[in-house]
Amino acid sequence: MPVPEIEQYFHTVEISTFNVSEDGEKLVFSTNINGKYNLWAMDLPNTFPYPLTAVNQNSSLIHIDGENRTVVATFENDGDENFQLHYLPLSGGKPLPFNEKEQKSTCYHACFTKQLDMYHSSNHENPLLNIYRTDLKSNQTTLIQKGENAPIVVAAVSPDGSAYIFTETYTNTHAAGFYQSAGDKVAVVPDPTVPHVIKDVRFIDNDTVYFVTNYEEEFSYLASFNLSTYEFQPLLKIKNQEMKAIKVHNGCIFICSEQGVRDHLYQYDITSENVDIIDLPCDLITKIELTGDGTLFSLGISAHQIDTIFKREPNGIWTKLTNNKVLGISDDSMIKPEVVRYPSFDGLSIEALLFKPAEDKANGCTILWPHGGPQQAERLKYRPLFQYLVQSGYSIFSPNFRGSTGYGASFQRMVEQNWGNGPRFDCVAGMDWLIEEGHARKGKIVAMGGSYGGYMSLLLGGRHSEYFCAIVDIFGISNLLTFLENVPASWRTLMDQMVGNPEKDRDKLVRDSPMTYVDDMSKPMFVLHGKNDPRVKTEESGRIVGTLKEKGVYVEYLLFDDEGHGFSKKDNEMDAYQRIRSFLDSVIE
Amino acid sequence: MPVPEIEQYFHTVEISTFNVSEDGEKLVFSTNINGKYNLWAMDLPNTFPYPLTAVNQNSSLIHIDGENRTVVATFENDGDENFQLHYLPLSGGKPLPFNEKEQKSTCYHACFTKQLDMYHSSNHENPLLNIYRTDLKSNQTTLIQKGENAPIVVAAVSPDGSAYIFTETYTNTHAAGFYQSAGDKVAVVPDPTVPHVIKDVRFIDNDTVYFVTNYEEEFSYLASFNLSTYEFQPLLKIKNQEMKAIKVHNGCIFICSEQGVRDHLYQYDITSENVDIIDLPCDLITKIELTGDGTLFSLGISAHQIDTIFKREPNGIWTKLTNNKVLGISDDSMIKPEVVRYPSFDGLSIEALLFKPAEDKANGCTILWPHGGPQQAERLKYRPLFQYLVQSGYSIFSPNFRGSTGYGASFQRMVEQNWGNGPRFDCVAGMDWLIEEGHARKGKIVAMGGSYGGYMSLLLGGRHSEYFCAIVDIFGISNLLTFLENVPASWRTLMDQMVGNPEKDRDKLVRDSPMTYVDDMSKPMFVLHGKNDPRVKTEESGRIVGTLKEKGVYVEYLLFDDEGHGFSKKDNEMDAYQRIRSFLDSVIE
Repeated sequence: MPVPEIEQYFHTVEISTFNVSEDGEKLVFSTNINGKYNLWAMDLPNTFPYPLTAVNQNSSLIHIDGENRTVVATFENDGDENFQLHYLPLSGGKPLPFNEKEQKSTCYHACFTKQLDMYHSSNHENPLLNIYRTDLKSNQTTLIQKGENAPIVVAAVSPDGSAYIFTETYTNTHAAGFYQSAGDKVAVVPDPTVPHVIKDVRFIDNDTVYFVTNYEEEFSYLASFNLSTYEFQPLLKIKNQEMKAIKVHNGCIFICSEQGVRDHLYQYDITSENVDIIDLPCDLITKIELTGDGTLFSLGISAHQIDTIFKREPNGIWTKLTNNKVLGISDDSMIKPEVVRYPSFDGLSIEALLFKPAEDKANGCTILWPHGGPQQAERLKYRPLFQYLVQSGYSIFSPNFRGSTGYGASFQRMVEQNWGNGPRFDCVAGMDWLIEEGHARKGKIVAMGGSYGGYMSLLLGGRHSEYFCAIVDIFGISNLLTFLENVPASWRTLMDQMVGNPEKDRDKLVRDSPMTYVDDMSKPMFVLHGKNDPRVKTEESGRIVGTLKEKGVYVEYLLFDDEGHGFSKKDNEMDAYQRIRSFLDSVIE
Repeated sequence: MPVPEIEQYFHTVEISTFNVSEDGEKLVFSTNINGKYNLWAMDLPNTFPYPLTAVNQNSSLIHIDGENRTVVATFENDGDENFQLHYLPLSGGKPLPFNEKEQKSTCYHACFTKQLDMYHSSNHENPLLNIYRTDLKSNQTTLIQKGENAPIVVAAVSPDGSAYIFTETYTNTHAAGFYQSAGDKVAVVPDPTVPHVIKDVRFIDNDTVYFVTNYEEEFSYLASFNLSTYEFQPLLKIKNQEMKAIKVHNGCIFICSEQGVRDHLYQYDITSENVDIIDLPCDLITKIELTGDGTLFSLGISAHQIDTIFKREPNGIWTKLTNNKVLGISDDSMIKPEVVRYPSFDGLSIEALLFKPAEDKANGCTILWPHGGPQQAERLKYRPLFQYLVQSGYSIFSPNFRGSTGYGASFQRMVEQNWGNGPRFDCVAGMDWLIEEGHARKGKIVAMGGSYGGYMSLLLGGRHSEYFCAIVDIFGISNLLTFLENVPASWRTLMDQMVGNPEKDRDKLVRDSPMTYVDDMSKPMFVLHGKNDPRVKTEESGRIVGTLKEKGVYVEYLLFDDEGHGFSKKDNEMDAYQRIRSFLDSVIE
């Protein structure tokens, strides 16, 4: 069989979110099955989908009301991420905004009660957000609470509608939860000033909420708060796992947790405190929902399987409701990576993904892929580029170097003000391990990555040239000083903490900038950038390309007129990846 | 609920054809679910579809080979109706032509054997077509027979591959079937020179074929032919029904037949000669397929339900595999027409469809819709325009006047050289019947139709003005003499027989031309035409519009620059129908 064409990997159907009716008969999901995002529905058990909208906009929230009459959903405007609340009949039609004022505002979260009330937070009257209650029968909206100290988001409403929990968000890593009780504002953790986050608050009864928090811990865990006694109680911690979402059903809590490159799902019995792990049909869980009879619905993804909605009967049997595939590529011939661990220079254990081509296709070249962020992680998620390159004969190695998320708060902080050393040595140790294990050869490695990954590729290319046969830099940073000068003013404090201060930390920033090592960059290089990139200016790429060209190093430069920081257009992305493939093929020949 | 918008009726998914693997596990169908036609598949029992191609072309034939490895399918080029044979893996991918020569040729029919041979007829070497055999394992093609007297099409191949039946097509209504036996060419009916047609030839064993023919009858029926004894035998005739397709399974013949506005399905036992009618979940059947275990798959459509693939288990239970809907309109609120019959002026019984709006929406205006053709019929098929107008308050009445198909050969011939009288009086009798039954009021009727239906609307408007409040003429003929002058030369003989000879029948053609009655046309008129119409020139519309304008009659004229005879672009069609709706609303106010 010939290597599949790049287009095939991009002709995939994506699903962003879904909801299922309480009776389990209607499933509504947001998908681009017809080329653009719309809401589609299934009349279960028939899984053949039909469209509910023709708005061509993506949704971040879908809710089917308890009477199966109305769908409440958010829609953005051509990717602007301003998700606005709308409603439409469950049989489909034109989504209508709840009121005119809301039309330009963003909905941050919405909770729904059995009484058909909706509570939501929106920015249309207050940049710190307000909380509103909307009666879904009459569409009448009432202001409930104004944001004062910090943006407030309604997190959960009690079953009888008498109480609610809201969060105040101070920073990315500090969001406290409160119970607003007749004038009293009671924190759900003992000291809300200690940096921590609160996620997925759920009422068990009118007096008790369960939620996920990392209060005073490395990893998020399950905790409870009692609205009468004000008692906070940690309930379940799972070693080295970050809980991220919970659902309540009949005295049970279903818990999604993150462990490095993959997710897990648990069922926790509130009374017996017994915990069972649930086998998953996918590597990562995007969302779970439960219906009245305990049937679980899950949106999941794997490195070798695109977005899929699964159903799990109460007897534990999973079935696929959707059946999206990569065009023309059978599930069997998708490449599954190995999940490996290796010790870094200082003994720190690093998790990584290793994609290997079929033996008869392997071309002996390994791509080192440092992920972007840097406080993100490369996880078991379908990536068109990876599948395409591995099918074409390349190995790909993607280490979750120090600073990656999913390995605890301390691990994550290790990249802060240490962009150029720790993570770089983790990459080098990873390459040494690969070579030792026979997965790669020194001098036959390509460093390739985007954003922070592009920066790291450049830095590795300058400081460890001997490992590489080529460098591919996608939207990367070549000079930390100019990068920091160009970020928006509002990012300064964050950037001081994350990267360093251009004055105080000047020496370190020079030491950690790829440009400093430009004289040692001798390997063929391919640099890609988007002209409108607001985060990393094109000068970051332009300067290094210019310098290398002057030195006579082989450099290809591809500048996209209509892209920012990342690809928004599939055609550009496919073009970029095809060009990368050609570049790589020419380099390893 | 507001009247649904016209767009909703057009955001529908169409399915042109399908095939199912012998084991019933793969269903491949041609559908425009993502906006353009492609092949999509289901892994049954999961009915969630995924694409097999990205060619954006419609198919007329799909075949899954007996080993579930390959799909053979035809693809046209942007609607050119030159369907060309291709093959692709069952997992999907790029369809490849069988050979270069075939790339520009049209495949007329293909038969497949268990030995993975394909027999097909193609025009790439001979305008009278040749028959070829292709070994699907090696893709080697051999010429089997050349067309000599008339275009030849392979109709069926015997199970052991030793014999085949082919048809020679002389005219639209005369196509004879032959068995080519070592030099002998034996007709499957006693006298192949008697005009008749042969359809759907199926081998029961190596010696016997069953097929459908109208040989010496008004309606097509089931017959057999024995390849050893050369015996022809009529087997089953169903009164007033036109058989159109058969499938063979385990000693049974499944028969699709047409009766006026709807289809029927029968199961005929070859041994006992017993016939059972099978309840249908739809009004019309586009295609049926059977799998090894006797499960029946059917593509069907109804006036109130768009293209749907159904499955019928051997126990008789039907389920829907697809679930296409009109966007935002629940199945319950689609309008189902009544099927009525009324006696015409001469006692001839005429079948008609009567769509009535919900009582609280009815606006008292009835649209008389004479169908096009005229040798076609208005059947129980989803029509966006009808649903839209009836939801908006209009009644629609569509009589299958004399000349319509599906009521026997004599009935069909009654329009020939009689365009302006018989069918017109059928329409008038239909209106009288409507008025008598309380379904319409004289003077509150709109005559509206396309092509022949536009011609009839104009003629009625000129000769029976008192019935109408408005006329809508879509691509219609205003003058039979100029119409006949402008048809392509190759149509002349056909047109002489169908309409009349411009010299010999001049008086009748003048009598039957709407232009003759232009002085009696006083009601508001809306005329629509496509500039590139090759069948009915725009002058047909231009002239009548000009004359009426001079007389001061209210006329709207909408000329589409980029349309021919009928709408090829949904946007134009929606625009036209919305304009028609506005015109009608303004007229009845």
